[in-house]
Amino acid sequence: MKIDGKQFHTIWLKKGNPAVVQVIDQRKLPFKVEISDLKTLEDTFLAIKEMKVRGAPLIGVTAAFGMYLGLLNFKKGDVDAFLKKSAEYLKSSRPTAVNLAFATDGIRSSAKEKNKEEATRIALNFALNLMQKEIEFGNKIGEAGLGLIQEIFNKTGRPVNILTHCNAGWLACIDWGTATAPVYKAHRAGIPVHVWVDETRPRNQGARLTAFELAEEGVPHTVIADNTGGHLMQHGLVDLVIVGSDRTTVTGDIANKIGTYLKALAAFDNNIPFYAALPSTSIDWDMEDGLAEIPIERRNPDEVAFVEGLGEEGISRIRIIPEKSDTANYAFDVTPARLITGLITERGICHADKKSILNLFPEKDE
Amino acid sequence: MKIDGKQFHTIWLKKGNPAVVQVIDQRKLPFKVEISDLKTLEDTFLAIKEMKVRGAPLIGVTAAFGMYLGLLNFKKGDVDAFLKKSAEYLKSSRPTAVNLAFATDGIRSSAKEKNKEEATRIALNFALNLMQKEIEFGNKIGEAGLGLIQEIFNKTGRPVNILTHCNAGWLACIDWGTATAPVYKAHRAGIPVHVWVDETRPRNQGARLTAFELAEEGVPHTVIADNTGGHLMQHGLVDLVIVGSDRTTVTGDIANKIGTYLKALAAFDNNIPFYAALPSTSIDWDMEDGLAEIPIERRNPDEVAFVEGLGEEGISRIRIIPEKSDTANYAFDVTPARLITGLITERGICHADKKSILNLFPEKDE
Repeated sequence: MKIDGKQFHTIWLKKGNPAVVQVIDQRKLPFKVEISDLKTLEDTFLAIKEMKVRGAPLIGVTAAFGMYLGLLNFKKGDVDAFLKKSAEYLKSSRPTAVNLAFATDGIRSSAKEKNKEEATRIALNFALNLMQKEIEFGNKIGEAGLGLIQEIFNKTGRPVNILTHCNAGWLACIDWGTATAPVYKAHRAGIPVHVWVDETRPRNQGARLTAFELAEEGVPHTVIADNTGGHLMQHGLVDLVIVGSDRTTVTGDIANKIGTYLKALAAFDNNIPFYAALPSTSIDWDMEDGLAEIPIERRNPDEVAFVEGLGEEGISRIRIIPEKSDTANYAFDVTPARLITGLITERGICHADKKSILNLFPEKDE
Repeated sequence: MKIDGKQFHTIWLKKGNPAVVQVIDQRKLPFKVEISDLKTLEDTFLAIKEMKVRGAPLIGVTAAFGMYLGLLNFKKGDVDAFLKKSAEYLKSSRPTAVNLAFATDGIRSSAKEKNKEEATRIALNFALNLMQKEIEFGNKIGEAGLGLIQEIFNKTGRPVNILTHCNAGWLACIDWGTATAPVYKAHRAGIPVHVWVDETRPRNQGARLTAFELAEEGVPHTVIADNTGGHLMQHGLVDLVIVGSDRTTVTGDIANKIGTYLKALAAFDNNIPFYAALPSTSIDWDMEDGLAEIPIERRNPDEVAFVEGLGEEGISRIRIIPEKSDTANYAFDVTPARLITGLITERGICHADKKSILNLFPEKDE
């Protein structure tokens, strides 16, 4: 998608130097577009952990490139043991998204018992393929979700109001996004859309990233405090909710950015369709109970105590709580399948239940 | 209650000069405790509008003092016409809370057909009485709510986790608070309590004011992003929700700070008691349908686009959204009675329905 009119992905191999992976440093957006070089396994680990890159699909691809960079710089020793250690290391960067496991374990098993050169080539191909796959998944999710928006527009004849939480946009992926893909498809198809963007405290990925994406693509949108969605839904100002998912159980529960559950409750209470858009790489085929099983990341309490933004002297951080107070910072919550109207996947839309999910992905039905 | 160990109210007549009303400028809290002089009707109007003072009970009392200051400075003319104009003016400062009408219309009818001197005395007495009444209401609400906390503690034997939204504390009132009054009573009674404080975007009254109050009183508490409450409730980390109310219909719907409805949905979904604490001065005896009838204030969009806090150079404001993006700022939402376990009033606790409310306030049953 576009930044300042120029086409971008979120991650790519550096032109002329395939030993360097480049990413947009998303911690600086929307105030500054800064490209960052990743040269080592540790660079990718830190880029994920410190949220230079974020979003389930993107951190999966970044981890795959991390395995590749690790191998590239690997001097000598047992390749399998190195891959095992690297995968564990990368998976420890953030606990909730399943994509890290998908990418790193995928490379581990593909490169099993290969020598360093072969393993390196396999890892690079895996990363490049995963990147292409995620782009194509976004594209397909967009096409599937476009139908939902079209249908609402056909019925109402007025701009379709879509609410989204956090950033499940192209910045969370490689291109298109998950939750935003249907929005971009609709916008390009000439269907009038307007997006309510939850600012998404504590890290404000909505206010900073989703708003930025939509602004750069020229999609009408309004940023709101996370408290606002329920009121809008009560008053008929939301036609459709689409969010992403960092991990989806095979039973249709989703773990997504903290606060998603509250919006799902409000959508349910007001009879508004609530969809999660996700590539199948975000599905954890081994999990049945999201609330009991999905690990919820707790992040640095300072992310709640301080807010970052653009001050008179550039990007700065201010404290918003008293010195004597503490904070807690849970990064995700689980929305149970009973509150979800459907899942938008690269293979189309299904109900949020095991039978419907396995119906779309029969090869996973053991 | 206490600031830095010293006893405070939120509003008082200046010592030695009853022509001046003093308030704590709450826009500077928790970073600076600044006392502000109100000398005219316009001063009180602006103090309410610009949220130097806020909270339904406190703005009611401030408006009453505003009527008094207006009369004090009134040169000559028709007192009744002046009172009418002043009441309309003060009521236009903020639309949602019913307390402004209660205070200003109360003075208008008490001072009807009096001369300037009599009317001034009546207005001052009305303001002082309302102030005393609100303090006593907070005290009584605290005692009524204490029973709820005691009961939970008796059952669990561990610290009682109470979630609150926005600031319905003593800073929103004169003393004690509404939602926080039971917390202070429990804390003083030696019952271990811990408060989850919603930061309450966009103006962060939770992070700035409720956290400050609780810290100054030594009550254990943790500030959380507004997105967090649902997750905490899903995991048994909340025993009780208590919020305030800016306007309560006679049928038990409440208008409270935007986002309250989302927390009520989560409490309902997780079978957690959800109470609104309110003095009867916040009840609108003429309204039956909160969603349809209570006017919801829309405030300056910049309150969403910017966040204020303590930076390296003192209190400063930073922009958190892209230049090209817009925001919307709804200040309140309505929580329907069906989601409310009960109302905690100065006359005790009742169900959130017309019959139960009128049972506590039979004199309102026409």
